[in-house]
Amino acid sequence: MKARKKNHQIFKPDPSKRGKRISGKTGLPPGSLVHIGKVLTDSVSVNLTEYNSKEIFQRKIETLDSLDVTNSLNSWIEICGLHETKIIESFGNRLGINPLILEDILNTEHRPKFDMQDDLLFLTLKAFYIDTNKEIKNEQVSFVLGKGFLVSFQESTHPWFEPVRSRLVDSTGNIRQHGLDFILYSLIDVIIDQYYEVVESIGDHLEELEDMIFDNPSQILIYQNRMIKKDINSIKKALLPALEAINKLNRNKPELIGKDVIIYYNDIDDHILQILDYVDTHRELSAELKENYLSNLTLRMNQVMKLLTIITTIFIPLTFIAGVYGMNFQNMPELTWKYGYFAVLALMFIIIAGMLFYFRKKKWI
Amino acid sequence: MKARKKNHQIFKPDPSKRGKRISGKTGLPPGSLVHIGKVLTDSVSVNLTEYNSKEIFQRKIETLDSLDVTNSLNSWIEICGLHETKIIESFGNRLGINPLILEDILNTEHRPKFDMQDDLLFLTLKAFYIDTNKEIKNEQVSFVLGKGFLVSFQESTHPWFEPVRSRLVDSTGNIRQHGLDFILYSLIDVIIDQYYEVVESIGDHLEELEDMIFDNPSQILIYQNRMIKKDINSIKKALLPALEAINKLNRNKPELIGKDVIIYYNDIDDHILQILDYVDTHRELSAELKENYLSNLTLRMNQVMKLLTIITTIFIPLTFIAGVYGMNFQNMPELTWKYGYFAVLALMFIIIAGMLFYFRKKKWI
Amino acid sequence: MKARKKNHQIFKPDPSKRGKRISGKTGLPPGSLVHIGKVLTDSVSVNLTEYNSKEIFQRKIETLDSLDVTNSLNSWIEICGLHETKIIESFGNRLGINPLILEDILNTEHRPKFDMQDDLLFLTLKAFYIDTNKEIKNEQVSFVLGKGFLVSFQESTHPWFEPVRSRLVDSTGNIRQHGLDFILYSLIDVIIDQYYEVVESIGDHLEELEDMIFDNPSQILIYQNRMIKKDINSIKKALLPALEAINKLNRNKPELIGKDVIIYYNDIDDHILQILDYVDTHRELSAELKENYLSNLTLRMNQVMKLLTIITTIFIPLTFIAGVYGMNFQNMPELTWKYGYFAVLALMFIIIAGMLFYFRKKKWI
Amino acid sequence: MKARKKNHQIFKPDPSKRGKRISGKTGLPPGSLVHIGKVLTDSVSVNLTEYNSKEIFQRKIETLDSLDVTNSLNSWIEICGLHETKIIESFGNRLGINPLILEDILNTEHRPKFDMQDDLLFLTLKAFYIDTNKEIKNEQVSFVLGKGFLVSFQESTHPWFEPVRSRLVDSTGNIRQHGLDFILYSLIDVIIDQYYEVVESIGDHLEELEDMIFDNPSQILIYQNRMIKKDINSIKKALLPALEAINKLNRNKPELIGKDVIIYYNDIDDHILQILDYVDTHRELSAELKENYLSNLTLRMNQVMKLLTIITTIFIPLTFIAGVYGMNFQNMPELTWKYGYFAVLALMFIIIAGMLFYFRKKKWI
Amino acid sequence: MKARKKNHQIFKPDPSKRGKRISGKTGLPPGSLVHIGKVLTDSVSVNLTEYNSKEIFQRKIETLDSLDVTNSLNSWIEICGLHETKIIESFGNRLGINPLILEDILNTEHRPKFDMQDDLLFLTLKAFYIDTNKEIKNEQVSFVLGKGFLVSFQESTHPWFEPVRSRLVDSTGNIRQHGLDFILYSLIDVIIDQYYEVVESIGDHLEELEDMIFDNPSQILIYQNRMIKKDINSIKKALLPALEAINKLNRNKPELIGKDVIIYYNDIDDHILQILDYVDTHRELSAELKENYLSNLTLRMNQVMKLLTIITTIFIPLTFIAGVYGMNFQNMPELTWKYGYFAVLALMFIIIAGMLFYFRKKKWI
Repeated sequence: MKARKKNHQIFKPDPSKRGKRISGKTGLPPGSLVHIGKVLTDSVSVNLTEYNSKEIFQRKIETLDSLDVTNSLNSWIEICGLHETKIIESFGNRLGINPLILEDILNTEHRPKFDMQDDLLFLTLKAFYIDTNKEIKNEQVSFVLGKGFLVSFQESTHPWFEPVRSRLVDSTGNIRQHGLDFILYSLIDVIIDQYYEVVESIGDHLEELEDMIFDNPSQILIYQNRMIKKDINSIKKALLPALEAINKLNRNKPELIGKDVIIYYNDIDDHILQILDYVDTHRELSAELKENYLSNLTLRMNQVMKLLTIITTIFIPLTFIAGVYGMNFQNMPELTWKYGYFAVLALMFIIIAGMLFYFRKKKWI
Repeated sequence: MKARKKNHQIFKPDPSKRGKRISGKTGLPPGSLVHIGKVLTDSVSVNLTEYNSKEIFQRKIETLDSLDVTNSLNSWIEICGLHETKIIESFGNRLGINPLILEDILNTEHRPKFDMQDDLLFLTLKAFYIDTNKEIKNEQVSFVLGKGFLVSFQESTHPWFEPVRSRLVDSTGNIRQHGLDFILYSLIDVIIDQYYEVVESIGDHLEELEDMIFDNPSQILIYQNRMIKKDINSIKKALLPALEAINKLNRNKPELIGKDVIIYYNDIDDHILQILDYVDTHRELSAELKENYLSNLTLRMNQVMKLLTIITTIFIPLTFIAGVYGMNFQNMPELTWKYGYFAVLALMFIIIAGMLFYFRKKKWI
Repeated sequence: MKARKKNHQIFKPDPSKRGKRISGKTGLPPGSLVHIGKVLTDSVSVNLTEYNSKEIFQRKIETLDSLDVTNSLNSWIEICGLHETKIIESFGNRLGINPLILEDILNTEHRPKFDMQDDLLFLTLKAFYIDTNKEIKNEQVSFVLGKGFLVSFQESTHPWFEPVRSRLVDSTGNIRQHGLDFILYSLIDVIIDQYYEVVESIGDHLEELEDMIFDNPSQILIYQNRMIKKDINSIKKALLPALEAINKLNRNKPELIGKDVIIYYNDIDDHILQILDYVDTHRELSAELKENYLSNLTLRMNQVMKLLTIITTIFIPLTFIAGVYGMNFQNMPELTWKYGYFAVLALMFIIIAGMLFYFRKKKWI
Repeated sequence: MKARKKNHQIFKPDPSKRGKRISGKTGLPPGSLVHIGKVLTDSVSVNLTEYNSKEIFQRKIETLDSLDVTNSLNSWIEICGLHETKIIESFGNRLGINPLILEDILNTEHRPKFDMQDDLLFLTLKAFYIDTNKEIKNEQVSFVLGKGFLVSFQESTHPWFEPVRSRLVDSTGNIRQHGLDFILYSLIDVIIDQYYEVVESIGDHLEELEDMIFDNPSQILIYQNRMIKKDINSIKKALLPALEAINKLNRNKPELIGKDVIIYYNDIDDHILQILDYVDTHRELSAELKENYLSNLTLRMNQVMKLLTIITTIFIPLTFIAGVYGMNFQNMPELTWKYGYFAVLALMFIIIAGMLFYFRKKKWI
Repeated sequence: MKARKKNHQIFKPDPSKRGKRISGKTGLPPGSLVHIGKVLTDSVSVNLTEYNSKEIFQRKIETLDSLDVTNSLNSWIEICGLHETKIIESFGNRLGINPLILEDILNTEHRPKFDMQDDLLFLTLKAFYIDTNKEIKNEQVSFVLGKGFLVSFQESTHPWFEPVRSRLVDSTGNIRQHGLDFILYSLIDVIIDQYYEVVESIGDHLEELEDMIFDNPSQILIYQNRMIKKDINSIKKALLPALEAINKLNRNKPELIGKDVIIYYNDIDDHILQILDYVDTHRELSAELKENYLSNLTLRMNQVMKLLTIITTIFIPLTFIAGVYGMNFQNMPELTWKYGYFAVLALMFIIIAGMLFYFRKKKWI
C-alpha cells in the first residue's frame, strides 16, 4: 500500500498548486484578459530575434517601443510566461491583435485552434515533454503571424525553440533565406517532433508494465496503467483539434504563407496522423493490460478454489470416518476386531488414492 | 444503509413535486400554450430595462401597454416565471412572436434551439447552477431578439443576468454603446460561464470519490458516482444541441446581429467545445471509478478466499490426524507408545511449517 | 419462478397469434397486395368526413363510388383495418395510388417512410399506445394526401384521430379554415403526442424497478428490465426513420402543403428529437439497472464469502484443539493436570477474541 | 459434451471441402480467370429463355453460337455453375464482357457490387437460403444486363429464379410486356425475398434458445448462439454492400433501365433496410442471450455459495461443541453432571434455531 | 509457464534490435533524410529493368549516371534497402524527387499515402508476408512514377516483384505492350495479393485456437490470441490509409496513368475492401475467443464450487453426528443401547441418500 501512496503523490495534481480556474472569469465582460492556469515561470521574459538573409540580431526586450516592423528585417518575438497580463496586453495593442485572440492565448486550457483575422494568423497548440522526473508535462504554445513579425507565446521558459534559433544563427539549410512563414512551420515542427518522444516513452513504459502484470498482477501496476491512460487521453485530446486546426490552415491557404512554403504545412498532418496511430495502439495496449489483470485475478481465484476443494474433498470424508470410530457406543463390533484399526487406515489410504486419481484425471493437479 | 437512504432522498426527484408533463398536451391543438415543467417561482415578474448610450431606465412592469418600441431606446424585457401562460401570451401578441415559438418557450423540457422568424431571432438554452444544498439544478432560458427589443424568459427568479445588468448600469467597457445584439451575446456568455463552475465542481467531487473508493469501496460511493454520471449526462445533453444552435446562428448571419458583434458569437462555440472536453474527461473518470470499484470487489474476494483456503488447508489435515487417534479401536499400537502423543504433535508442527512455507512461496502470505 | 412464468406470458408474443409474415410473399410478383401482420380488427370500416369552412358531413361508406373529389369539399377518408386487400385495392385504384405504395401500406412491418408520387404524398408511421393491460402496443398508420382528399390507413379501430375529428366538428381554433395539409399535420401531431405518454410511462416503470432492484435484486426484475429495453428499442427503431421521413418531407417542400402550413411540419422534428432524448436517457438507465444488478450480485457473494470465512477461520482451529485432547494416547500429561480443561477453554476463548479483533480491524464485521 | 461435438460438426466448415482460396491467385496477371470458392454443382448448365410479348422459347445450350442478340426477342441466359472457366470466358467474349468483370463473377467471395461498363450493367449479390438440414447457406449470384440480353450467373443449380420463369411462361401480370430491365428487377426481388425467410428462421431459433437458456443454461446453447451470431454477421456483411450497390444503381439512372421500371428498383432498398432492421434486432437478442447466460452463472454460483455457507455456519460450531466434550481431560465437571448431555443437546438445538432465524431474516432461505 | 516464455520470445520485439526511432529526428531541419526503422538487408542493391514492346534489358546499377530517361525504353528502377541515405538522395536528385517525399520513403513507419507532385506520382504502402518461422512480417514499399521511369523502394531484398518481372521477361499477357502505369498497377496488385495469404493464415490459426480453447482453456492460448489480435490490428492500420490513398489516386485521375489502365486501379479498392471484411471477421472471432475463455473460467469455477458444496454439505452434518456420540458424558442413554451404533449408521446412510437425491433434483450431479 505504501508504494501506492507514494506513487499517488507523484501522479496526482496538488489542488493547492492548481492555477486559476476558468470559472474565475464568470461574470467578467467578454475580452477581459485573465490568465487561466498555473504560473510556470517566475517572470515574463521577451526575446526579440531580427534577421534577414544577411544579418541576425538577438536581444531581450521589455516593451515593443523600440520595435520597427516596417524595416526590412523579419522579427520573431518570443514571449515566455503568460501571467502578467499587462505585458501581453501592451504587446497585443502594439501589434493590433484582437482582445478575443489575446483572451484565448491567456486561457491555457483552450483547445488547439487556428484563426485568421484581417492580416493576422493565430494558432494555438499544446506542447508535451518529459520532465526530469520522467513525468509527462504539457503547456500551451500560441503563435501570431503578421506582416513582418511572428510572436510565439509559451507558459514556461522551456527551450522549445532552441533548435530553430540555432539553425537561424548558423543559417543551417539556408533557413535565413526563408520568411517568417517558414520559421512558423519550423516552430510547429519541433513541437510535433516532441510528441514522438513522449509517445515512444509511453510505449516503453507500457511494455514494461505488460511483463510485470503478467508475472505478478498487483493493484499498483493497475494504478500506473491508469495514469498512463490519462496521459494518452490528454495527448489525444490535444492532437485531434490540432489536426483540425492545421487542416483549416491548409484549406484556407492564407496569403501570409508563401506558395513554396505551404507544402511544408501539408506535411504536418501526416505527422499528426502517425502520432495518433501510435496513440491508438497504446490505448488498446493499456485497455488490454487492464483486462489481463482482471482475467488473471479470476484465474488465480480459480486456482485457489481448486486447492481448497481438493483439500476439503480429500480430508472431510476421512475425518468423518475417524469420527465414526471415535463414537463411544458400547456395542461397536469393529472396535474389538484385531485388525480394525489397520483396515480403517487402509480404507482411508484407498480413498486418498482414489481422490487424487480423480483430480488428476480432471487435470486439477 | 441509512446513509444511502438519506442520500437517496437528496438526489431522487420527488414525483409529487414534478411539474406538468408534456404528455398532458396530447390531443390539444398545435400552438396551444401550456406550461410544461415545475413551477419554480411564486409569481411572474417582469423587468424592463431601457437604455441608450446616454441614459438607462429600469422598472417593473405588468403589461406591455406602456412600452414604446419605436423610440430610440433599446428595451430589454426580462420575464421570470413561465407558469402564467396568459401573461406570456399577451407579451407574445404585443411583440408579434409566433405561437409555435411561445409553445417552445413554455415547454421547459425543450432542447436548446435556434430559429429565425421574419424579423425575430429565437434561442433557447439550458442554464445550470449549483444551489445552496450543493445540488446541481438547471432551468430553461429563452431569448427573443427583435428590432429594438430583447426578451429573456427564465423559469425562476435566479439572478442569472445580474452581472450584465450591473455592467449596463455602470456602462463598464462601454457596453451601453452596443446594441441589443451585444446584450444578447453577454447574456448567453454568463449562462455558458456558469457551466464552467458546475463542471469544475463535478470534477472536484469525482476526485474526492476516487480517493474514497480506493480506500474503502462501498455501495453508497457507487451510488454517488451514479448520480454524478446523471448530472454529467444531462449537461452533455444540454450542450450538444446548444452547440448546434449557436453554429446555426453563426451560419445564418442574421441581419439583427451586427458585423462587429458576430465575432463574439463565433467565440461561444469554442467555450462550449472546451466544456464538452471537460465533460468527456469526467465521464471517463466516472466510468473508471465504477470499474475500479468492481475490480476492487474481485480483488477483495480473492483475498478472502485465500485466507479461507490457508486456514482450511492447514487445519483440516491436522484435525483429521487428531480424529484418527481419537478412534476407539482396542488395538491401536501407537496409542500405547510412550512418546506417541509427542510424535503426533511434532508431525502436526511439521505439517503447519510445511504449509506456511508453501503459501509463502506462492506469495499468498 | 412462478411470478416469472406469469410475467413471461404477459410479455412474450404468442406465435400462434402472429400474423402473416413477410416471407409469405416470396415468389409473388412485385406489387402483389398481401396483408403482412396481425389482424387487429374484425371488419374493415371506412369513415368519410367532408368539410369546408362552413359545413361538415360525416358518414360511414363502403365504396368510393359516391365520392366526388371535384367538389369544393375537403374529403378525409379514414380506413380502419387492412386485412381485406380487395377494399384497399379498390380505394387505391379509385384515387390513383400506385400499387407499390399500396403494398407498403399493407406491409405493417414496413419502416416509417415518406414518398412523393406525381400529385400524391405518401407517409407511413408507427403509432404507439398503452393498452388497458398496461402493455405497450404499436400499429402502423399511413397517410395518402392528394388534391382534395386525404386517406388515413390504420390497422385497428383505436380512436387515434378522435381529438382531430372533434376539433373539426367544433371548428376549434378555426381548424376548418385550413386545408387538408393542416389536417394531415394534426393527425401526425396526435400520433407523436402519444409517444410522450408511452415514453413517460416507461420512465416511471424504470424508476420503480430501480428502487426494487436496489432493495432486493432478483431475476424477475431483470426480466422486466429486459422487456422494457425491448420496448425502448422498438420505439427508437420506429422514430429514427420517422425523423428521416419528416425531414425528407420538409426538404422537398411539396406543393400539396401550403407555405403557411409548412412551419407546423418543421415543428414535428423538434418533438421527435425530444422523444429520442428521453428514449436515450431511458436506455442508459435500463443498462445501468442491469449493471447494478450484477455488481450487487458480486457484492452479496463477497458478503457471503466473508461470513463463511469468519466462521471457518474461528471454529476450525478450535475444533482442531478439541480434537487433539480427544486423542486416546495413554501418555498425555495435560489430560491429568487438574486445570487442563479450564486452561484449554481459556486458550479457546483467547483465540476467538483474537480472531474477532482481527476481523474488526479488517472491517469485515 | 457429445451433443456439442455433434453440433460442432454440423456448423464447422470442413477445411478439406473448402474450395480454392483467393490467395491461390497471388502472382497471376490481373484479369486471369480463376474460380475462387467451392464447386457446388457437378457440371455447368446453361439455359436460354427467349421471349417477347407474344412468344417464349426455352432451351438448354452449350455455346452461344446459335444466339442471335439482334433479333427482336429478349434473351435471358442462365448459367449455373462457375467452375469451368472456359465456358464463362467464351460467353464473356461473345457478349463483350470485360475480363475484370468476369474475374469478379468467378471470385465467389467478392462483395456485392454494381458497376457500369460502356453498354453493360454488372451486379453481384449474395443469395441466402435454408437447406434441407436447416442450415443457412449462401452463394454468389451475378447479373450482366446488356442490350437485348441478360445473363445470370449462379454457383449451384438451386432453383432461385423458378418463380420468375413460371411468371414469364404464364405471362402473369403481363410480365412479358416488360423488357429485360424488369426481369432483372424480378430476379433481384426473389433473391431479397429469400432473406426474409432466412432472417425469420433465425428469429425463431433465437426465441427457442432464449427459453432454453433461461431454464437450463449450458455451454452447448451458448455454442448454438454463437453459430447464429455468425450467420447474422454474414447476412449483415452481405447486405450492407448490396444496399450500397443498389443505391449506386439508382443514383446512376442507367439508360438500360426504363423510366417506368426504375421506381421498382427504388423499392429494393426499402426491403434491404427492413431486413437490416430485423438483423439488428436479432444481433441484440443474441448478445443478450450471452449476457443472460453469464449473469445466470453468477447467480447460480451465488446460490451454491449460500448453501455452502449455511451448512458450514450451522454445523461447524456444533461440531466444535461436540469436540469439546469429546476431550479426555480427567477433570471436566460437566461430564459427570447427570443432565450434561441433554443440556448440550438443548444448546445445540438453540444454536440451530438461531442460525436458521438469522438466515431467514437475511432472506437466504 | 515455460511454453509461454518461449512463445513470448517468438512474438515480442527485441528492443535491442529495434531500428532507429522517429524521435531521433527531433530538432533536425525539415527534409533531413534520416532512415527510420530496422535495417533489413546488408547492402543496398539497385536493379534497372528497361523494356519496350520488343526488347528488355536487366542489370544491376550503382548510380544513375548511365540512365537515359529520354530514350524510348521504359525504365523500372528497383531499390532494395533504405539505410544508405546517400544513395537514396542521389537517386532522388537525379530524378527530381522532392526531399519531403524522400523523407517519407525513408521513414518506414509512415502511413500509406498517395501524393502528386508536378509530373511525379508518389505512393507508399505496407507489404505483409509470412516468413519461414511462420511469423507475420511487414515492410514498407514505396513507388515513384515519372515520365519514362518508375522507381520502387523496399526495405529488404524480399522478392516481392518477382512475378511481375518474370511476366515482363516472358511478356505474358502482352504486359510489355503496356506502359509503366500498368507495371505500377501490377506491382501494387502483387502486394495486395500477399495480404490474402497473410489473412487466410491468420484465419487458420484462429480456428485452431478456437478448438484448443474449447477443450482446455489456458493462459498461453490467450496469449497467442492476443498476439494474433496485434497482427490483425496492424494489418487493419496498414489497409485503411492504403484504401484512402488508392481512392485519392482514382479521384485525381492523374495524367501519368492512361485511360485504359485506370480501370485496373479502380479494381484495387474492391480487393482492399474484401480483405478488410476478412480482417473484421477475424477481429470478431478473436474477441469471441477471449470472451469464451473467460466464460469458461467462470463455468469451471462454478463446477468446482458445486463439488466443494456437495462434499461439505454431505459430510459436515455426518461428522457432527459422529462428534455427538464421541462426547464423554457419563449419562448418555443411546450409548448403552445395543443397537445404538447401527441406528446411527442407518441415520447417516439416510442423510447421505437424501442429500444425493436433493442434489440430483437440482441437477448438480
